[in-house]
Amino acid sequence: MPDKPVLRIGLIGTGFMGKAHVFGFASAPKVFDLPYRLELHTVADITPEAATRAAQELGFAHATADWRSMVENPEIDVIDITAPNALHKEMALAAIAAGKHVYCEKPLAPLASDAREMAEAAEAAGITTQVGFNYLCNPMLALARQMIEAGELGEIRGYRGLHAEDYMADAESPWTFRHDPAGGGALADIGSHALATAEFLLGPITEVMGDCVTMIGQRPDGKGGAHAVEVDDVGRAFVRFANGAQGSIEGNWIATGRKMQHDFEVYGTKGALAFTQERFNELHFYSTADAPGRRGFRRIEASPDHPPYGRFCVAPGHQIGFNDLKAIEVAGFIRAIAGRQPEPCNFRKGLAIQTIVETIQASAKKQKWMNVGH
Amino acid sequence: MPDKPVLRIGLIGTGFMGKAHVFGFASAPKVFDLPYRLELHTVADITPEAATRAAQELGFAHATADWRSMVENPEIDVIDITAPNALHKEMALAAIAAGKHVYCEKPLAPLASDAREMAEAAEAAGITTQVGFNYLCNPMLALARQMIEAGELGEIRGYRGLHAEDYMADAESPWTFRHDPAGGGALADIGSHALATAEFLLGPITEVMGDCVTMIGQRPDGKGGAHAVEVDDVGRAFVRFANGAQGSIEGNWIATGRKMQHDFEVYGTKGALAFTQERFNELHFYSTADAPGRRGFRRIEASPDHPPYGRFCVAPGHQIGFNDLKAIEVAGFIRAIAGRQPEPCNFRKGLAIQTIVETIQASAKKQKWMNVGH
Amino acid sequence: MPDKPVLRIGLIGTGFMGKAHVFGFASAPKVFDLPYRLELHTVADITPEAATRAAQELGFAHATADWRSMVENPEIDVIDITAPNALHKEMALAAIAAGKHVYCEKPLAPLASDAREMAEAAEAAGITTQVGFNYLCNPMLALARQMIEAGELGEIRGYRGLHAEDYMADAESPWTFRHDPAGGGALADIGSHALATAEFLLGPITEVMGDCVTMIGQRPDGKGGAHAVEVDDVGRAFVRFANGAQGSIEGNWIATGRKMQHDFEVYGTKGALAFTQERFNELHFYSTADAPGRRGFRRIEASPDHPPYGRFCVAPGHQIGFNDLKAIEVAGFIRAIAGRQPEPCNFRKGLAIQTIVETIQASAKKQKWMNVGH
Amino acid sequence: MPDKPVLRIGLIGTGFMGKAHVFGFASAPKVFDLPYRLELHTVADITPEAATRAAQELGFAHATADWRSMVENPEIDVIDITAPNALHKEMALAAIAAGKHVYCEKPLAPLASDAREMAEAAEAAGITTQVGFNYLCNPMLALARQMIEAGELGEIRGYRGLHAEDYMADAESPWTFRHDPAGGGALADIGSHALATAEFLLGPITEVMGDCVTMIGQRPDGKGGAHAVEVDDVGRAFVRFANGAQGSIEGNWIATGRKMQHDFEVYGTKGALAFTQERFNELHFYSTADAPGRRGFRRIEASPDHPPYGRFCVAPGHQIGFNDLKAIEVAGFIRAIAGRQPEPCNFRKGLAIQTIVETIQASAKKQKWMNVGH
Repeated sequence: MPDKPVLRIGLIGTGFMGKAHVFGFASAPKVFDLPYRLELHTVADITPEAATRAAQELGFAHATADWRSMVENPEIDVIDITAPNALHKEMALAAIAAGKHVYCEKPLAPLASDAREMAEAAEAAGITTQVGFNYLCNPMLALARQMIEAGELGEIRGYRGLHAEDYMADAESPWTFRHDPAGGGALADIGSHALATAEFLLGPITEVMGDCVTMIGQRPDGKGGAHAVEVDDVGRAFVRFANGAQGSIEGNWIATGRKMQHDFEVYGTKGALAFTQERFNELHFYSTADAPGRRGFRRIEASPDHPPYGRFCVAPGHQIGFNDLKAIEVAGFIRAIAGRQPEPCNFRKGLAIQTIVETIQASAKKQKWMNVGH
Repeated sequence: MPDKPVLRIGLIGTGFMGKAHVFGFASAPKVFDLPYRLELHTVADITPEAATRAAQELGFAHATADWRSMVENPEIDVIDITAPNALHKEMALAAIAAGKHVYCEKPLAPLASDAREMAEAAEAAGITTQVGFNYLCNPMLALARQMIEAGELGEIRGYRGLHAEDYMADAESPWTFRHDPAGGGALADIGSHALATAEFLLGPITEVMGDCVTMIGQRPDGKGGAHAVEVDDVGRAFVRFANGAQGSIEGNWIATGRKMQHDFEVYGTKGALAFTQERFNELHFYSTADAPGRRGFRRIEASPDHPPYGRFCVAPGHQIGFNDLKAIEVAGFIRAIAGRQPEPCNFRKGLAIQTIVETIQASAKKQKWMNVGH
Repeated sequence: MPDKPVLRIGLIGTGFMGKAHVFGFASAPKVFDLPYRLELHTVADITPEAATRAAQELGFAHATADWRSMVENPEIDVIDITAPNALHKEMALAAIAAGKHVYCEKPLAPLASDAREMAEAAEAAGITTQVGFNYLCNPMLALARQMIEAGELGEIRGYRGLHAEDYMADAESPWTFRHDPAGGGALADIGSHALATAEFLLGPITEVMGDCVTMIGQRPDGKGGAHAVEVDDVGRAFVRFANGAQGSIEGNWIATGRKMQHDFEVYGTKGALAFTQERFNELHFYSTADAPGRRGFRRIEASPDHPPYGRFCVAPGHQIGFNDLKAIEVAGFIRAIAGRQPEPCNFRKGLAIQTIVETIQASAKKQKWMNVGH
Repeated sequence: MPDKPVLRIGLIGTGFMGKAHVFGFASAPKVFDLPYRLELHTVADITPEAATRAAQELGFAHATADWRSMVENPEIDVIDITAPNALHKEMALAAIAAGKHVYCEKPLAPLASDAREMAEAAEAAGITTQVGFNYLCNPMLALARQMIEAGELGEIRGYRGLHAEDYMADAESPWTFRHDPAGGGALADIGSHALATAEFLLGPITEVMGDCVTMIGQRPDGKGGAHAVEVDDVGRAFVRFANGAQGSIEGNWIATGRKMQHDFEVYGTKGALAFTQERFNELHFYSTADAPGRRGFRRIEASPDHPPYGRFCVAPGHQIGFNDLKAIEVAGFIRAIAGRQPEPCNFRKGLAIQTIVETIQASAKKQKWMNVGH
């Protein structure tokens, strides 16, 4: 595509999310008619050897062990950060200072105050940002939002949102950065997905009453001893939305047997929706407009009627996968860079999620309802 | 069965629940080998005509419009109360005073203070009591409790319980006694079922943080005007159990599309259970003891392995229905009267549920965590 | 109900089905406003002791070890046959000769020729008959038929019907009368249910191509030896319906893990239905009349909109059970005796099912398509 | 990856399947450590303009309107054929003659005789071939086969396989090449998938009894007239497997509401499997080794325990999509070219499937059982 301008990408981090982003960069241009041609320019990892190996595996032209030099490389247009959370802020601010567009995995930063600094810097610099809340990229969530906005459910009254998994259910699973009081815990780690989905569908959450519980009080420290755990294994909240609806949210990483219980139910005056990420190519819809005796939750399967599903599969029933969600995420970001659409989930949005997380945590600690000071 | 002593029953109320009880009285002796022969002695309704018609339809030998005379009739052994909630206390106390065993529909009374008076009177009189929390009579709930007690799930950490329906979702549905601040609201009406199931499975709830929301602020008063509604349409709580587990509960009568979302999920260190009353002949069980790569929630179908299912159907897959739950409820009561087993769900238990309901309501009002003063 | 005429019942057989019928006799009058009062007059079993014990347990006034005398007792109006299949014909013909109405468990007789003799005798005598195809009594099947007849699915093109269980999957399960070449096998035993449902929904099956397979060639004979098995463990057929539709049917009693896979799918030009007896309070409906992007199989839950469900439960979601199906079956028979409705599933219908079974078996043996000579 | 040899690809056809193949070529090397570097060399389409546009969109270096010249280009190693079925043979034979490895979409050819010629030519030339039965590439099918081979289900007795969709349910959908008697019809088009899955899991099908039905006798010819349809809308068969199992297969393209009912159930002496492509990241497993009262179909979710799922997602619950199946398919082919593994689904296998399709069609026409002359 010689007629398209090029966007050169510098990636920091080569773990699972780094690879998932590369899948996205590779497939997005094949699936969508993007305004730019994407070029995998440089990948940064901790050592030169690791970086060189990653460059070969992932298809980057260059490798470096010095992310700072990469950030300042004038050939590079986009900095993609998939490094550990604690480094997001420093890296993003450096990239913003260098005038790069920044794509950052979630959570944007361990603390809302950091996230705010990042969002404000990005806005001041006028660059384009993106936070990787990939579940929002599902065509069935787009459908759900569209149905809600179009009034197909009537006035929205109630919401139940969850994100539960079991990857921390084993008490012998060792202490990691995810257990660090600065930004760790189930609510921050995956409850944040439940919050992002809730706001994506119903708009801003305005008030919360939190409940954060540590069920596994210590974990192996990896050196034969034990490390006390202070963060929540379960973080939940009662919530109020600006649109008048009320509901509840839960993040839970000790839900034995659950692998991806990112579920929601929306109840309106005329209908309802039910969804689980475990079967994310489906949306279940109940409508009071159906004839009496013929009502029921109907299982809508993802199809070309639900853009951009048709970009991936020309017929219903084929189904998209997790990496396709990443491709959709990448495409939205690239189009936003070109000014063709608003940023789908920018740093400001990442800040908003982080702010709710911290408000719920503070509410749980103070045992009182709190306003979310967006 | 001439060799069995007779238990003579007097029924007050002939609505849906009255009929369901009569189904129970009719089928329980056919299904179980009960220690008594049951005799439908007298039915009481508001007018003599209504009572006579009900006697004919339901198979009672006598009819009366004066429940008090029935309660005092020395021929009658059991008083069964299915009258409106507000009358439960007066009727039950009279029956207890007359030395009758008392079977009372849930909720035991609009207020916990009334329920306490009833429970204490019953205990002082030494008679046998029963409150109709029918969902507890499901063989799959017995299985769930047995699995939990046997340690098949390991140590229990988390619980999610719901009872959501949509029978009050229509804002044009008129004001009724269920909307009376004394004992009304979604939490008291159906959230109480979710609480009863939670305690049945995990034992006592000790602390709660409540959230009670009125979404439909007024309803037609049936006379062309509007009646303000003060009770909750949604009542939910964070909860703590005496066994160390934590979780959440929700009662909701405006959940559009939901007909019987009496669901629970239990998460332990070694396994998990998931259940919905919408498919109440099934229990879903996840075990970490299964081999890696072979784990998953397994759908256990009710079978003769799960007593007393086999009393109703000799083979799996046939399924019991709601009225069969009532038969199991009746059988438990009759055996308790004979001293063959503890009371399955007596007035003391009914009081406990009502106490949690009121503690949640008070907690919601005060916006703070409260101990459940059982 | 002194104003209603009495119908006195004589029951032969006191096994599972005998008890299920008694449940039906007990609950049907409580659920429905029947034209007769039912009286459990006499029960016949093999020995006087067994009969007396059954009378006590089941509530019959009299007991006998001589079914012939019972059949001829002028006080009795209805003979209910739940004895082994091989005895159905002799008993039914005697009852018909004595002018009794006859209620007979399925299959009507081991051979279609016997069933024909029974049906013709019943018609000549003008008495009312019933064969116990209980699954047809499900309100959701009534709904399905009504939807098909009303054209909600358009023109019907295709059908898939199953009845699979696993009660003969164990090769060590001994030889019984169900393995007798005269009337035995999976197709006759449970495939007949699949055929009954197919004809209930779509009308007559006109042509079949059968496939009957014996997978377990011998079974223990109970005396330490082995008994050769000649009947089918799996019996299936391609079918054609008089209405122009085509499809397939399967009966299977070695389907490991299946407890009640009595399933059907109906495909029409405008919609489709899917059903499984494993969740028989649900019917799944797809309609091309739904808006594009909003189509999907909707899960209709049994409710008072689906008579006679509301006779058992006044609200949706409560669910009926297997024994309730028997109550509906009884009620239909009683009303047919009173001339208030056509016989729901009479001997002629039982003959029709048996005829298809034998045609499929003959077709499988001859390896060619055959007309069903109704 | 300069250290890897290069494999240069020439693609014929740029429709849905062409694009899906390109997705596979793009993502396979990122997901797997392949023995070759893949280079998208040339794409061939009908006109130079279309080819040039496709080259740009899909990332090929060269474009041509002359597939023959491409096939003979010595720089190209692999010819990938996604052109209409009728052209497969000519193209494949030319590619084989030129010594290329050949990747061909299913069905291999409209007629088994053509397929045989292709398979024999390929084997004589010693090149590597692949037919695109993508559903076989699902990690859950690999799991199913592994479980069957390891004896986890015991001896296999029964099988039910389906592939039903509704893309031809509308009688106004016009006549296309898929309706051509040479190679068309539901059985050939999608029933072939059901056959491929059956043989993948249980091994060779040896005997069939077919039933092929045309329900829509004519379709619009696109010129205002009607074109008679002779091919089957539903093609089904009774089948026997070499391993002693028996079962049934159905292909159906008029199953209203079904989008991807590619389902199977496998019944063994010790367990069973159930699967639907509608939820293809799940496999349901019943084991008689589970304790009594704890048995049930368990829902195994795709996870890194099920290779190569972990190549795409490092954690369970994330799920792969249709295009990922294509990447797995590509990877298997590439490794087979390098001699690192047997061909997963070569021309010989494609011939086998086509042979069964034709045997079923012939059997349906002759109305008799036929051996599959592999």
